Amino acid sequence: MTALEKEAFRAAAVWMEEAGMKTHIDNFGNLIGRLDGQDPALPVLMIGSHLDSQPYGGRFDGVAGVLCAIEAVKAFTEQGMVSQRSIEVVSFADEEGWRFTKGLFGSRGILGKLEPGELQRTDKDGITREKALIDFGCDPVKFKESEYKPGSIFCFLELHIEQGPILDIANKPIGVVSGISGPLWLTVKLKGMAGHTGSVPMHLRKDALLGAAEIIVAVNEIATQVPGNPTVGTVATINVFPASRNIIAEECVFTVDLRDIDLERRNKYEKQLRERIEAITKKHQLSYEITEDTNSEPRYCANWIKEIIHNECKALNLDAPELMSGPFHDALALSYACDYGMIFVRCKDGISHNPLEYASYEDLSLGAEVLLGTICKVLKV
Amino acid sequence: MTALEKEAFRAAAVWMEEAGMKTHIDNFGNLIGRLDGQDPALPVLMIGSHLDSQPYGGRFDGVAGVLCAIEAVKAFTEQGMVSQRSIEVVSFADEEGWRFTKGLFGSRGILGKLEPGELQRTDKDGITREKALIDFGCDPVKFKESEYKPGSIFCFLELHIEQGPILDIANKPIGVVSGISGPLWLTVKLKGMAGHTGSVPMHLRKDALLGAAEIIVAVNEIATQVPGNPTVGTVATINVFPASRNIIAEECVFTVDLRDIDLERRNKYEKQLRERIEAITKKHQLSYEITEDTNSEPRYCANWIKEIIHNECKALNLDAPELMSGPFHDALALSYACDYGMIFVRCKDGISHNPLEYASYEDLSLGAEVLLGTICKVLKV
Repeated sequence: MTALEKEAFRAAAVWMEEAGMKTHIDNFGNLIGRLDGQDPALPVLMIGSHLDSQPYGGRFDGVAGVLCAIEAVKAFTEQGMVSQRSIEVVSFADEEGWRFTKGLFGSRGILGKLEPGELQRTDKDGITREKALIDFGCDPVKFKESEYKPGSIFCFLELHIEQGPILDIANKPIGVVSGISGPLWLTVKLKGMAGHTGSVPMHLRKDALLGAAEIIVAVNEIATQVPGNPTVGTVATINVFPASRNIIAEECVFTVDLRDIDLERRNKYEKQLRERIEAITKKHQLSYEITEDTNSEPRYCANWIKEIIHNECKALNLDAPELMSGPFHDALALSYACDYGMIFVRCKDGISHNPLEYASYEDLSLGAEVLLGTICKVLKV
Repeated sequence: MTALEKEAFRAAAVWMEEAGMKTHIDNFGNLIGRLDGQDPALPVLMIGSHLDSQPYGGRFDGVAGVLCAIEAVKAFTEQGMVSQRSIEVVSFADEEGWRFTKGLFGSRGILGKLEPGELQRTDKDGITREKALIDFGCDPVKFKESEYKPGSIFCFLELHIEQGPILDIANKPIGVVSGISGPLWLTVKLKGMAGHTGSVPMHLRKDALLGAAEIIVAVNEIATQVPGNPTVGTVATINVFPASRNIIAEECVFTVDLRDIDLERRNKYEKQLRERIEAITKKHQLSYEITEDTNSEPRYCANWIKEIIHNECKALNLDAPELMSGPFHDALALSYACDYGMIFVRCKDGISHNPLEYASYEDLSLGAEVLLGTICKVLKV
């Protein structure tokens, strides 16, 4: 939802049109390319991902999925194939969520799943989501016009780089996704008491940053309590007030990201974390507030789509392992509206959300072939 | 070194002139009021403190010392007293050091004690100290003209609020300072590896914020290892890069503030801290850099000035305890150029560097009386 995303949209729209699609940007800021089917009244086959990135991200996360979808549709039309259903390729707005610390904006938007107050969330400069949307050329008053009615999406396909090391370690270019382990996102705010770092005796302090540090250590202990488990727990942002080197921190705000493919275990760990926060803040005489920003349950791919993807991989002589996705994707939002399937492409050393992120063009090209094959089979269902 | 400090200077300059002083702002940004003595060639009696505050500070830290000094000089002239020596009341520029994370700028400046590269330090918006000085109306090229020659300051007096709870707990309005326990200020920078919080397995991570959190906990453990010791250790600022909730922190920069009246013990603790940083960063596969921003040794007040202050307190029937200062003051810089003495005024609940900071006008008035008496005695030496 920035000028840069708009620029990426302009480039992608040209390629969509070259592939035979009509394009428009909806009121959530999604770029939609549509290839009309012979029966435009049928539920659409939707394929997509996102073109936005992270402030310190790479060139493949999201982008690979949009471009491979356009490429697959281009091949589809160039080979003279036709479809009863319309096909839509969507670049969803603000999947990453770094600016307003809440992601999947566009994909939740088209399903009428935005939460109350979401337009009033502010970025670090105090700009609201609403203002950012209007600046992007959207009209939040007309959200309804951009929503998809229940049943109007037949199914959803997404290709994405893995963003983890499993395919790379196994030396496999393509993976079939079994599901997405949704994250629990919390914001924790601690309040203590400012004071001079030179004169307030240690035992009289209410140091919010010290409390935060102990909680960050606790998040790591909780996530790693059973070595080898796929649980991940991370604190990646922290802000201190007043942030002067000789004033004891009065306030500290940080975010927690906890994920697991096993929802029961994640819930157990969340409970442990809340108990640790209670104990640590009590010890340091801090008050605290925990806000739940996102709480997604694991969502599994449709078996029939997985089967198609597996078969397409086999047809290309690819031995494609099935694996869970730790990161969430737009498919997570779509999973509440229709069946979905996902194709993973290997990325070097598992590195993602980092400028070093890399997927080879050979692997991406294989992914696009699997996607095209999957599209053709899905259209015949 | 901001427009607000300039505004405070304007108000104080008017009061200095009403007290009979000539005023000017020197090239370091210090406001200087001078009452010429009968022999202007004699080394001056300098009295001062600062008018700058913290981003989340109070109204008394620094300000009390400048205003009580002006008040004392006003009483001195109003009572028709004259002095052989000239008296100078100085409001030193940027004592607090929050903007460029290095304090005592003006008081070090007049003694030729600025460090190489100091003008190139930047604030959070990238503005250099040099630019801030020029914006303030100073001319860094002419620093030399504003320096004081060795021997040209006879002695230095500073009144300040205690900024700690000792006088308040003892129910004494005034204290006599025995010395200042200078701080060790370090900046620690950790570098790890960015990655997706959802997909990088815990054991493969190089999480800079997790490393920082463990070091913050270590600073606290080191400073509190002997309960009841006056050692204080604090981390009060922290910045993370890239600071997105779903990217593992690649870099983390934070400041350490370690103080003790016992330099040997402080050095021992610093060594422990460096060993802990080495071990923690090794465990998390982080690289690190430690920059020493300030390393002040404890500096003790002159016995003959302490004796004068004690006597003045007794003359006013005040039972004034002697105590060490945890915070540093401009007197710390001056201690390298001349003898110095300090008067502490009690502050409510020991709160400072906090908008709740408070000292009663009755206590401040007593402090100003003690200061006036001290000035008169010092001038007779």
